[in-house]
Amino acid sequence: MVEGRDLREIVERVVKGEVKLHELDKLLGNSNLAALVRRLALEKITGVSLSSIGSTILDFEELVGRNIENPIGAVQVPVGIVGPLRVQGEYARGDFYVPLATTEGALVASVNRGAKAVTLAGGAKTRILRDGMTRAPVIWTPSVEEAVKLVKWVEENIDVLKKAAESTTRHGKLKGLTWWITGNLVWLRFEFETGDAMGMNMVTIAVDKALQELLNNYDGDIRVVALSGNMCVDKKPSILNMLLGRGKTVVAEAIIPRDVVREVLKTTPEAIHEVNVAKNLMGSARAGSLSYNAHYANIIAAIFIATGQDVAQVVESSMGYTWTEVRNGDLYISVTLPSLEVGTVGGGTRLPTQREALALMGVGGSGNPPGTNAKKFAEIVAATVLAGELSLLAALAAGHLAKAHIKLGRGELNRSDSNIGSKVNP
Amino acid sequence: MVEGRDLREIVERVVKGEVKLHELDKLLGNSNLAALVRRLALEKITGVSLSSIGSTILDFEELVGRNIENPIGAVQVPVGIVGPLRVQGEYARGDFYVPLATTEGALVASVNRGAKAVTLAGGAKTRILRDGMTRAPVIWTPSVEEAVKLVKWVEENIDVLKKAAESTTRHGKLKGLTWWITGNLVWLRFEFETGDAMGMNMVTIAVDKALQELLNNYDGDIRVVALSGNMCVDKKPSILNMLLGRGKTVVAEAIIPRDVVREVLKTTPEAIHEVNVAKNLMGSARAGSLSYNAHYANIIAAIFIATGQDVAQVVESSMGYTWTEVRNGDLYISVTLPSLEVGTVGGGTRLPTQREALALMGVGGSGNPPGTNAKKFAEIVAATVLAGELSLLAALAAGHLAKAHIKLGRGELNRSDSNIGSKVNP
Amino acid sequence: MVEGRDLREIVERVVKGEVKLHELDKLLGNSNLAALVRRLALEKITGVSLSSIGSTILDFEELVGRNIENPIGAVQVPVGIVGPLRVQGEYARGDFYVPLATTEGALVASVNRGAKAVTLAGGAKTRILRDGMTRAPVIWTPSVEEAVKLVKWVEENIDVLKKAAESTTRHGKLKGLTWWITGNLVWLRFEFETGDAMGMNMVTIAVDKALQELLNNYDGDIRVVALSGNMCVDKKPSILNMLLGRGKTVVAEAIIPRDVVREVLKTTPEAIHEVNVAKNLMGSARAGSLSYNAHYANIIAAIFIATGQDVAQVVESSMGYTWTEVRNGDLYISVTLPSLEVGTVGGGTRLPTQREALALMGVGGSGNPPGTNAKKFAEIVAATVLAGELSLLAALAAGHLAKAHIKLGRGELNRSDSNIGSKVNP
Amino acid sequence: MVEGRDLREIVERVVKGEVKLHELDKLLGNSNLAALVRRLALEKITGVSLSSIGSTILDFEELVGRNIENPIGAVQVPVGIVGPLRVQGEYARGDFYVPLATTEGALVASVNRGAKAVTLAGGAKTRILRDGMTRAPVIWTPSVEEAVKLVKWVEENIDVLKKAAESTTRHGKLKGLTWWITGNLVWLRFEFETGDAMGMNMVTIAVDKALQELLNNYDGDIRVVALSGNMCVDKKPSILNMLLGRGKTVVAEAIIPRDVVREVLKTTPEAIHEVNVAKNLMGSARAGSLSYNAHYANIIAAIFIATGQDVAQVVESSMGYTWTEVRNGDLYISVTLPSLEVGTVGGGTRLPTQREALALMGVGGSGNPPGTNAKKFAEIVAATVLAGELSLLAALAAGHLAKAHIKLGRGELNRSDSNIGSKVNP
Repeated sequence: MVEGRDLREIVERVVKGEVKLHELDKLLGNSNLAALVRRLALEKITGVSLSSIGSTILDFEELVGRNIENPIGAVQVPVGIVGPLRVQGEYARGDFYVPLATTEGALVASVNRGAKAVTLAGGAKTRILRDGMTRAPVIWTPSVEEAVKLVKWVEENIDVLKKAAESTTRHGKLKGLTWWITGNLVWLRFEFETGDAMGMNMVTIAVDKALQELLNNYDGDIRVVALSGNMCVDKKPSILNMLLGRGKTVVAEAIIPRDVVREVLKTTPEAIHEVNVAKNLMGSARAGSLSYNAHYANIIAAIFIATGQDVAQVVESSMGYTWTEVRNGDLYISVTLPSLEVGTVGGGTRLPTQREALALMGVGGSGNPPGTNAKKFAEIVAATVLAGELSLLAALAAGHLAKAHIKLGRGELNRSDSNIGSKVNP
Repeated sequence: MVEGRDLREIVERVVKGEVKLHELDKLLGNSNLAALVRRLALEKITGVSLSSIGSTILDFEELVGRNIENPIGAVQVPVGIVGPLRVQGEYARGDFYVPLATTEGALVASVNRGAKAVTLAGGAKTRILRDGMTRAPVIWTPSVEEAVKLVKWVEENIDVLKKAAESTTRHGKLKGLTWWITGNLVWLRFEFETGDAMGMNMVTIAVDKALQELLNNYDGDIRVVALSGNMCVDKKPSILNMLLGRGKTVVAEAIIPRDVVREVLKTTPEAIHEVNVAKNLMGSARAGSLSYNAHYANIIAAIFIATGQDVAQVVESSMGYTWTEVRNGDLYISVTLPSLEVGTVGGGTRLPTQREALALMGVGGSGNPPGTNAKKFAEIVAATVLAGELSLLAALAAGHLAKAHIKLGRGELNRSDSNIGSKVNP
Repeated sequence: MVEGRDLREIVERVVKGEVKLHELDKLLGNSNLAALVRRLALEKITGVSLSSIGSTILDFEELVGRNIENPIGAVQVPVGIVGPLRVQGEYARGDFYVPLATTEGALVASVNRGAKAVTLAGGAKTRILRDGMTRAPVIWTPSVEEAVKLVKWVEENIDVLKKAAESTTRHGKLKGLTWWITGNLVWLRFEFETGDAMGMNMVTIAVDKALQELLNNYDGDIRVVALSGNMCVDKKPSILNMLLGRGKTVVAEAIIPRDVVREVLKTTPEAIHEVNVAKNLMGSARAGSLSYNAHYANIIAAIFIATGQDVAQVVESSMGYTWTEVRNGDLYISVTLPSLEVGTVGGGTRLPTQREALALMGVGGSGNPPGTNAKKFAEIVAATVLAGELSLLAALAAGHLAKAHIKLGRGELNRSDSNIGSKVNP
Repeated sequence: MVEGRDLREIVERVVKGEVKLHELDKLLGNSNLAALVRRLALEKITGVSLSSIGSTILDFEELVGRNIENPIGAVQVPVGIVGPLRVQGEYARGDFYVPLATTEGALVASVNRGAKAVTLAGGAKTRILRDGMTRAPVIWTPSVEEAVKLVKWVEENIDVLKKAAESTTRHGKLKGLTWWITGNLVWLRFEFETGDAMGMNMVTIAVDKALQELLNNYDGDIRVVALSGNMCVDKKPSILNMLLGRGKTVVAEAIIPRDVVREVLKTTPEAIHEVNVAKNLMGSARAGSLSYNAHYANIIAAIFIATGQDVAQVVESSMGYTWTEVRNGDLYISVTLPSLEVGTVGGGTRLPTQREALALMGVGGSGNPPGTNAKKFAEIVAATVLAGELSLLAALAAGHLAKAHIKLGRGELNRSDSNIGSKVNP
């Protein structure tokens, strides 16, 4: 154990640059101590107090090398609760309380308002249309002829590659392969079932192994340019994922009775439908956007932070299509998320607060059978997105500032109903 | 003050549904107490312990209604440190320590490796090309003739709208307006300077006011369909933002000497360049992606969580273009982020841990003059993205699994340099 | 003059490869003769009769070097007539007969049906929202700093560049410049008024001159990588052109009374609206398309061939947005074409059949003042696109194959009104 | 037979509007006569001579109802010859002369220059990666549950649908079906082999029949909204077609020796490569384009007009990716066209001049076995696109206007080599 005096000395040496920040774990033999020294050194270097960041329940002995390096503490993000939200899915059935971690005022209140409307309407129906995690290396060959030959070899030897890939993982199962040729370049997009894990790292390792097998057995002049060739597609928006899916492809829908629209959402089905078509469809089209919704990202980001998902994947997980119809005076609304990447094991899901957030929804850890927890979670996420989308579309619709309806003094949108909020930031 | 027995009773009433979660703040007269009751009630309803989430330094009396509703506590996300990272910008000059909040193992280590290379190369040069926050309502008119008339009126009366808009804000200045007509529909995209704030809410309120002014003065049959018409574009990926910018448009670049590439990054400039062209350019093109990089989102998400930014804006803030050249044997690399939406005041920046994270980089609170802190911050973010991108491209390049170079037993990518990491998850 | 025997000898030498096809104009001193020899030689080489291609009224003495090289004759494309089509534009007012050159059966009949409906509805209102032809070189600089310096210089010296550019042309006027920086690369998008010409070649020459002026006067290490850097954007689909326009941005709209929809189009406004939202908006969104219509390209291609436009520009000229509303039981429909590139002088407009096709619409040659003919033509094109779009959407809507309505033996769509056709090929 | 006097009378009645243009075929009993009357009437109405359009070899008795309605004559487009162009494909092997119908000066010369370089390099290697024509109806269902049920039914009953679809056609074979669900909407994308026909009409009729079968047999509340739901994707640019193909997916490539680049193309492999990466990749990325090439559309449009293809399909057929590498000082270049829609039978291929144009390349009519002619044709098209792309990239590269190299008096690009041309209009 390191004494207080020694600690001060080490802090001094870090400040002087004699010891690097990342050397402290090994030097001190304890990652919590290393985090402390790092924090003290940074405070000295920058003159900034980091006491709040230092106030954490996290045990870095558990986390360093698995979830973080060079830690100095933690950031605390407030968690608000949406619910009860009724979900009528295949995996998620019942009333749920959904934790949102956010610092954006009115978001929780707004989603909650949508949850109320959806629940009064009998709940959100959800369906998972497909499921698979992907990784797509790009391979150089000398010619299109060789590229075609390679693809043919891969198709004929898929079992060999599958065996190699699956040798690296317990839960990952290769379920498909798609290829594209551009001149002499080949992209192979491997798709796996990954149980309850989001599975990207699992898949990366498995594909790396499959490629080694390929290189060992294929007779030809080829070269892996990059293990990820951007047709995976990870953390970038893409039509490819919208068409072929990545993670879970999920739909949530509800029919909101006219009177619920009026009483809870303060508007009409027709007005919400008009906003959806003009804003979400034509507006996104006009903007050259790939995503035809109002603010899925708000809900996805808040759930992802709360539950230890890979937050950078908000990019593609939040893409999707809102569809509305006026049916016999009621409102049909659905959200379709082609590329929702979630897991209930692995990554940040093991951290203490995140684990509780998952448990709160009954989706902590592995499902039985494996995969069912992640699917249940995906359905809850989609239902929450539905609630959030509905509420914002309604807020925009209710704000219809028709000339005749203007009243002086109304300086903001929708402040008449302050306890349910009406955040307008899509 | 509420007694313990009363508290238990209220918890019971919440469990029974007699009191709603969102009624607790008013009922108890204290938001911290309300958070506690909410948490206890949820524990009872779900049977799940939420003690970790409950262990927080946050004072909900400060936060409810501004940053969160229905809080039950906080989620804790580990913060790792990247740095020192040298930045040679217009606003950021010097060596910086950048806090990343993430649960993805190896990310901090990998970015740190890039930071080392960039710093050894003399630092990242950064430039802010433009700056402005936008909001774009969609307005219905009866005909294209009326649409044209409306646009003309707006252009001629822009001063009136500007005055109305700016009456709602101290720092917001209307700096531009762009319009699009689609048949009879009109989108008006208002753009504001917003000082050190990211500014979206500021701009929303200002535009709402401008629209009221418009509706009060314009003589014609028009209707605001939605205050946000999806040409803003907020929280959705879009070419519009890539072309016209939203938030800060920033570039960071460096020339990495060949020996630094070899010694720190374990590869060559040629190999990194090949990965960039095949993966980031052609790969993204092939995927129908709008974003031509490897993993900006990883860095953006981690900084955004750490510093209280609007995390849903990772979607568009993480979009951008990586460009590389081999110059006299060295590597030129740049990252261009057209739509980086950051602020150092407002939103989540006021929370205790987030405020410290900003202060650590010398960008906490308002700058002098206003706007300079946010710009300095944007430059640091871009430089960190450069570091992260460089490191991952190098890791992919070093993994070149050319057939001739395969050695049995090498089951992973880049394990030769384990303390700096080589996360491959773009 | 060349004698018959000499001619046979030259044909023989071409067949043997002693004379190249492109050398014949100079060798024979007459391009019509050269075309004949070329044709005879090819007939001999391939054994294929080319007598139909040889049967042409074209005078290659007029065309070689201006419109064609290595000619052997002409292809004949049938021209069908749409009209009368009533147009209520700013430039085009009255009833027009529009020539469509196509080999796709039913296209003319279908557009004609739409023209009838539009004309019965009082005609198509049209408006030109903007007008300008562009060319965007990409320039290399060593750094973002230099890139910013270059852009600043260009903005400050725009008058110098304008003078240089305009020295090359009588009608071209530089009206705007937009720039983009990506790392160290700079794109400058010059935009010109080009009178009645489509103007691309005019603009290319003007920009080349402006760049020489730039290179002569700018003090810095820069290099023009390509005179066209693909941000022009010519002959490729792009959001850039959709947002900023290229050529004419035009809208055409009409309100079709319910009974006209029923009697002429055999369906209802509601059914057409449903098809537009589900197919043109959501369908295109789902396909990752940039173009939200049914078949503008059919009409654009047919008019472009008939009138000597640059047919490769059908790519971007045919992009656009169809918007529909049901208003008091009637159908509002508009088409918006952001990037319609047309001219009435230059290019193929001078050829005999093409010139007649333009004259038929009263838009042959230069307008008075210059530019008005091209604008009038653009309005007629947009109105015809409106007619074609309306007819196809109606045909699809009328084909509603609701289960209850199925009658055995109905093997085709819309066979009830066979003489007006119902081509379904969007 | 109609007498001259009667003819004048009928013309008069058309002018007065008593007889409609489309009624003339039936009234006169002869479509050539009808065309004449139509032309005379239009001349009288508009005062414009249409004698050139009237000078045609077309026999409208053959064409009306199959290729055109309301004809008045034909437009004549000059045809220039590119070649000999060596192709080393699977279907096309040998030296070919390719007819381009265009009015754009320098295009034929420029492509010819590329053909010379490609041929000197040993020819273009070509490969067809996939082949299939598609049609994708959009179907309404009441809920996602029903949508899933429908898709399942379709998959289970695909043989029934296949039989129905194929009953309508001799050559069409259903080879695949892909589906997408958006909320309650379902798109079914049927893909067929279509022999030597481009096949769109064939496929439309087949899918219509399959849908009737579906509606007759499926037990559920569904409705076909539109037989084409824009996920086909016809005549609109889309990532869907780029990823999944439509028509032929073809690659053409060549390795151009350094000295051929220098002598024929007047530049270096390095310069061409730089233009490709900066312009075609980054430039298109920056423009929000879906197409990463310089001017495929120029070549595609010219061949399509010459050979009677559906010219509106230039839109998607011209999309694609140019890839270059510098290899041992030589230039590797490939073009990849994912969605080349061509046929050698049907549509405009039967017209006299168009038939000759196809025959000139040895691809007229049906192949043996069926489909081989269309594939051979596709390979020739791709090889010609390669030649055209190479030539323009070289022209742009040679135009490198480096400051040091400016010579006064050079007012245009590349006029030093006028007989090969250097059209710069991509």
